[in-house]
Amino acid sequence: MTLLEQIRAIVGDVGLVTGADVARRPADWTGSTPCRARAVVRPRTTAELAAVMKLCHAAGQPVVPAGGLTGLVRGASATDEELLVSFERMRTIEAIDPVGRTMVVQAGVPLEAVHDAAAEHGLIYGVDLGARGSCTIGGNIATNAGGNTVIRYGMTRDNVLGLEAVLADGTILSSMNALLKNNAGYDLKHLFIGSEGTLGLVTRAVLRLHPAPSSEATAILAIDGFDALTGFFALAGRRLDGGLKSFEVMWSSYYDLIAIQSGRHRPPLPTGHDFYVIVESAGTDPERDEALFAGMLGEALEQGLARDAVIAASKAQRNAIWAIREDVEGQIKMLMPGISLDVSLPITKMQEYVDGLCRSLPDLCGKDAMMVVYGHIGDNNLHLLVAPRPWNAKAKHNAEILVYGPLAVLGGSVSAEHCIGLDKREWLPLSRSLEELAMMRRLKTALDPKGLLNRGKVL
Amino acid sequence: MTLLEQIRAIVGDVGLVTGADVARRPADWTGSTPCRARAVVRPRTTAELAAVMKLCHAAGQPVVPAGGLTGLVRGASATDEELLVSFERMRTIEAIDPVGRTMVVQAGVPLEAVHDAAAEHGLIYGVDLGARGSCTIGGNIATNAGGNTVIRYGMTRDNVLGLEAVLADGTILSSMNALLKNNAGYDLKHLFIGSEGTLGLVTRAVLRLHPAPSSEATAILAIDGFDALTGFFALAGRRLDGGLKSFEVMWSSYYDLIAIQSGRHRPPLPTGHDFYVIVESAGTDPERDEALFAGMLGEALEQGLARDAVIAASKAQRNAIWAIREDVEGQIKMLMPGISLDVSLPITKMQEYVDGLCRSLPDLCGKDAMMVVYGHIGDNNLHLLVAPRPWNAKAKHNAEILVYGPLAVLGGSVSAEHCIGLDKREWLPLSRSLEELAMMRRLKTALDPKGLLNRGKVL
Ligand SMILES: Cc1cc2nc3c(=O)[nH]c(=O)nc-3n(C[C@H](O)[C@H](O)[C@H](O)COP(=O)(O)OP(=O)(O)OC[C@H]3O[C@@H](n4cnc5c(N)ncnc54)[C@H](O)[C@@H]3O)c2cc1C
Ligand SMILES: Cc1cc2nc3c(=O)[nH]c(=O)nc-3n(C[C@H](O)[C@H](O)[C@H](O)COP(=O)(O)OP(=O)(O)OC[C@H]3O[C@@H](n4cnc5c(N)ncnc54)[C@H](O)[C@@H]3O)c2cc1C
Repeated sequence: MTLLEQIRAIVGDVGLVTGADVARRPADWTGSTPCRARAVVRPRTTAELAAVMKLCHAAGQPVVPAGGLTGLVRGASATDEELLVSFERMRTIEAIDPVGRTMVVQAGVPLEAVHDAAAEHGLIYGVDLGARGSCTIGGNIATNAGGNTVIRYGMTRDNVLGLEAVLADGTILSSMNALLKNNAGYDLKHLFIGSEGTLGLVTRAVLRLHPAPSSEATAILAIDGFDALTGFFALAGRRLDGGLKSFEVMWSSYYDLIAIQSGRHRPPLPTGHDFYVIVESAGTDPERDEALFAGMLGEALEQGLARDAVIAASKAQRNAIWAIREDVEGQIKMLMPGISLDVSLPITKMQEYVDGLCRSLPDLCGKDAMMVVYGHIGDNNLHLLVAPRPWNAKAKHNAEILVYGPLAVLGGSVSAEHCIGLDKREWLPLSRSLEELAMMRRLKTALDPKGLLNRGKVL
Repeated sequence: MTLLEQIRAIVGDVGLVTGADVARRPADWTGSTPCRARAVVRPRTTAELAAVMKLCHAAGQPVVPAGGLTGLVRGASATDEELLVSFERMRTIEAIDPVGRTMVVQAGVPLEAVHDAAAEHGLIYGVDLGARGSCTIGGNIATNAGGNTVIRYGMTRDNVLGLEAVLADGTILSSMNALLKNNAGYDLKHLFIGSEGTLGLVTRAVLRLHPAPSSEATAILAIDGFDALTGFFALAGRRLDGGLKSFEVMWSSYYDLIAIQSGRHRPPLPTGHDFYVIVESAGTDPERDEALFAGMLGEALEQGLARDAVIAASKAQRNAIWAIREDVEGQIKMLMPGISLDVSLPITKMQEYVDGLCRSLPDLCGKDAMMVVYGHIGDNNLHLLVAPRPWNAKAKHNAEILVYGPLAVLGGSVSAEHCIGLDKREWLPLSRSLEELAMMRRLKTALDPKGLLNRGKVL
């Protein structure tokens, strides 16, 4: 029997996609390129996947794990020599414990399904991001996904209590801890969180849930000057502390293009300011929280930190505000071809950094090049959309040099939340020392000596 | 030159303790046994320690790292063949960034010094525990220390952004990330957090700070019945959410003995109830928070979840309430000789677990044996003080069988926050699978192939 026949014997016909059917599947969420894998394996259980991996290990067959394919760094892209392991049939929510506030899920469960299931018990899962309908918990774990509420609930790492992984040799490593505190030996889950499928295939997880807030307040503010922006951030932290849920900043470049020029939104605030900030709080007492929130905004206006502010008076208004920030279609329409980059750096260095980029942009990316800046400032995280003109491979590379180049000196990182995958591999040394890279390789060798798991990604 | 002479050449006379001076140092915080190490090295800098470790590695000299010696599982105990590496001269607070809310410290800085330095900037460090005056940040990191505010701020792991470690061979691995989000490659700090000095010696760290709350409310409640206890926990979570800072439960066994019988306290509530709960919230608006807190307590009393409640009306009253919970001297006076055990298990299983222990106690530990129970319930964490009568080695072992034995079946862990060290090593297999133990050994071999770092601890 060939390897694929042996695998078919384990996962059944429905569990294996081969031949021309492979290329009918998209390589990623954009749908612009076809999948190129040797075959696609779709296990239903951890045991099936473990059996498949035992075969692959014996045969030296490299594999690429794939969740919802919404990753932005080609971390799940497979060559025609690689087997794609898709978690699309591992979509079971296995258990919810409303007292312990935990949920047990298979890796293929979409993020949104977790939100829905938690809501039924008056609970929430603390990770939320624009790709919620398609991305999977397994993909979130592998990329340590962040999103819009990191400032309140942390990243995926902070919201996963335990997990189960299949190792390169097919061993099932079950570390399904459901306890908030467990210092019995090394905390092995961290090996698999954020390592992009290069150290193991995540099959199940225990998620941590929180009580659902019963109040939510959202506003958008116009701010002039970077000092006023950091001043307002400090004020919001002081006044709302644990209640502060989101602090998203759009530089005027972003706001003008997406909120105004695109014609896709009713701009809540006029053009002409330096920054537009979405601030959101979550609490447990609607009346009191509203007053606290409004008081905080009033203070900001009084102190001259903010020039103008609009509080969302309804769910619809809230959604309209967030639609500007999450308008991927608008970004594509106004700026593509171009690239989307995700970096982090100390807040205090952001203005200097962005000023530098603006100065170098024409030289590196052409005098008609465009760039917009926005991000999760409270988490040190900036997103940049750079559209070099004319658009070509060299211009794209120059855009990367533009954005990644200055980071090392400023204490920044070439990846805040999108990870490394293939796209950022050559830039990783900008953010990590030789000793760190050596340690990563040491771990890779210890866990996957044959180098079968997501080959060439990250390292 | 002998090894010790070579080391002296690096750290100087003040950096090396040898001969009879070694035994003049205590082996741990109780001061009841002398240090037995071959010598004590006290480096002043990371570079000195790295140079020392290079020598030790070449010579095959095993080392034991030591912080404030407050650990409770003999994790820092050294034999006369081992070199003790003490961080007592690495006590510099190197930097505080009030905007980015980070602090850079050397490993030997005491926890309390971190609190004090943060307070000067209106900030707090989220980890707090009874040993704050003596324990060090390095020890906290090595043990992933928890404490009284885990429910709000997490454990040490959640409050460390980056760190620097010296590896077994003397390599300096600097991963001093100061960014909340950094997905550029594997997050290496987690290898060293909670691994008790067996994978590397932590020399510096970047700590995450939070805005200092401007209001604090504390109460102690009397509760009857376990369902009422979990009901009150859920209510407090719903009403206070991010504001809930501590949720500490004392079983009547603890409260009666320490608060009442010891004669060391003025009991805020009378005897006769099943549970005594300390609940504490922190917020940003004293007036509003007070009302929210009082409302929450009122609801609890109305719904019959609580029988009685006292709100601390002053800092002094707050301290008096906490003094009951943190009364180590009282515990020693009333219960020693005996052992202090730290376990975690799902909240829903706690009552069944404690009932089982009470039933088995006389058989296993003698009919005059005593046991008291308390803990950080909101974190799944129970502490048990067991005093077998008569007290001897067999009785002590039986107490461990009593407490650890039932955990595996209930989904619990033999260590919530005190780690494994030497004392719990034989019990570790109760909480971790063969595959997990094999993976821990794989990591140990990858990072410390000669087995020089904290030999025989954990594994
Ligand atoms: C519109 C949009 C908005 C986004 N917003 C955010 C955001 O705010 N924050 C953020 O962090 N990201 C964001 N992303 C990126 C992306 O959604 C996240 O990275 C997400 O976590 C990927 O999940 P996925 O299931 O789609 O994984 P995939 O894209 O399928 O895979 C991502 C990586 O994980 C690996 N992987 C997948 N499943 C497993 C598994 N079970 N075991 C081991 N490895 C596995 C893959 O090999 C690959 O390396 C956004 C993407 C889009 C398209
Ligand atoms: C009164 C009291 C109350 C306590 N309350 C709590 C509590 O609420 N929560 C809790 O979690 N713990 C508690 N503890 C336990 C103890 O305080 C913690 O474990 C603390 O983190 C240990 O810090 P230390 O500096 O004293 O470390 P030590 O006791 O010196 O060492 C502890 C372990 O860490 C290793 N180590 C120390 N420094 C380093 C370093 N720089 N690099 C690598 N390894 C190192 C040692 O080898 C040892 O294995 C309490 C202890 C006491 C005495």
